[in-house]
Amino acid sequence: MRQLLSETVRRVRFVLVATQHSGNTGSAARALKTMGFDHLVLVNPARLPDETAHAMAAGAEDVLDGARICSTLEEAVADCRWVVGTTARARRIGLEELTPRQASQRARSILNESDGAEIAIVFGRERTGLTNDELQLCNAGLMIDANPEYSSLNLAAAVQVIAYELRTQLTDDEAESASSVTLQWQPDKAATHGQLEGFFGQTAKILERIDFHKGREERSALFKLRRLFMRWPMDEKELRMLRGILHDMERALRIQSDD
Amino acid sequence: MRQLLSETVRRVRFVLVATQHSGNTGSAARALKTMGFDHLVLVNPARLPDETAHAMAAGAEDVLDGARICSTLEEAVADCRWVVGTTARARRIGLEELTPRQASQRARSILNESDGAEIAIVFGRERTGLTNDELQLCNAGLMIDANPEYSSLNLAAAVQVIAYELRTQLTDDEAESASSVTLQWQPDKAATHGQLEGFFGQTAKILERIDFHKGREERSALFKLRRLFMRWPMDEKELRMLRGILHDMERALRIQSDD
Repeated sequence: MRQLLSETVRRVRFVLVATQHSGNTGSAARALKTMGFDHLVLVNPARLPDETAHAMAAGAEDVLDGARICSTLEEAVADCRWVVGTTARARRIGLEELTPRQASQRARSILNESDGAEIAIVFGRERTGLTNDELQLCNAGLMIDANPEYSSLNLAAAVQVIAYELRTQLTDDEAESASSVTLQWQPDKAATHGQLEGFFGQTAKILERIDFHKGREERSALFKLRRLFMRWPMDEKELRMLRGILHDMERALRIQSDD
Repeated sequence: MRQLLSETVRRVRFVLVATQHSGNTGSAARALKTMGFDHLVLVNPARLPDETAHAMAAGAEDVLDGARICSTLEEAVADCRWVVGTTARARRIGLEELTPRQASQRARSILNESDGAEIAIVFGRERTGLTNDELQLCNAGLMIDANPEYSSLNLAAAVQVIAYELRTQLTDDEAESASSVTLQWQPDKAATHGQLEGFFGQTAKILERIDFHKGREERSALFKLRRLFMRWPMDEKELRMLRGILHDMERALRIQSDD
């Protein structure tokens, strides 16, 4: 068995959104620990880890006890440089759709080619998955290809498969030669999600101010912009420049409206 | 989602040896069905599929009900051309040790290069796995690499990982060419260079108008914007939207300066 570097492990967080059954939280903790991971974040869980969760964790109680609880997904991934959300709807909403292997290769590149970039793998509710709004916070979608007639992997099974695939990529020397998805950016300089949200918020205000929507659905344009700017991570410098432009634009518009 | 060929699916049997908890049998049935498999064999189970097993199967009852019951592993794999047994002891007893990926690649070759060869993937008891005698019936050992400090995948988790890996090998065209992370854009819809130049030209005018440069070298900001927007191709629609925004911005600025 190979060891994952603990430094690398800590930079990968598994985020469970609004899990209904605490037993599933426990099983998920177990699944990720078997693959050597330990960073669990629970967003707005129906129940905090309880006895059932601990029973299902079966030796992974430390992961469960160390889980951070957040009230929104936004908060959970605010400092992440790359976020991938499990879903069967990625394409429909314009998100890039990756297989577990592709997502793991991407993650590997980001983790290896950066000093401290953090990444998140996000899992939705047992029945309904992630909402479209939650998926909008993701850089890419991840879909586990399954039996079209029976695709109901439970939460822990999905965590198991993805954690397995990620472990394989992170420990496997084969993976090196198999594929090196070279990135054109430096993950540790990538803008964080929090910074991106600030940018989108400011953009939204300006679009309204210049009457860009003209009665059309506001969300639609914002959605497209989000896809465009999140398709490939921006670095902090670039984002600063864009925000500088928006700032000057606001000033230009405001100064003139004061005339 | 891709379909596995039903003829291929049927030639892969999942054999559970002396499973103690019938709930695990049910969960294993579910796991293999999610990945499109349906051929389950139970060797000398502590309990025949009961209510607990059916509850855990959650929609995979057909797999459970169709399971063949055998009294020995020998009987279960008698007509198989290739048998791989999950174990952490393969090397110690002189068996070749394969990863799930290697075993799946092997399985793929056997299934594709033969007319009707059947293969078996064998899983041992929850606590003690397969006996050495049982492993002697296998052509190879299969080990899921796990956290050295916590390697206790449960039975269903192990079935899930291996069934996932096998499905990936059997359905994935990628498997052929290692891996090519495909982009989500269509080159024939990508914006042309001419269109991009128009966008950059319009942006330059606005930057000047809102006094973004403030005495700094104008080229530097334009160069950075160019890098940002050309790093990954934009499609025509996206570019049209951005130009729409710039247009409205010009209008907002112009209208007001006319006031």
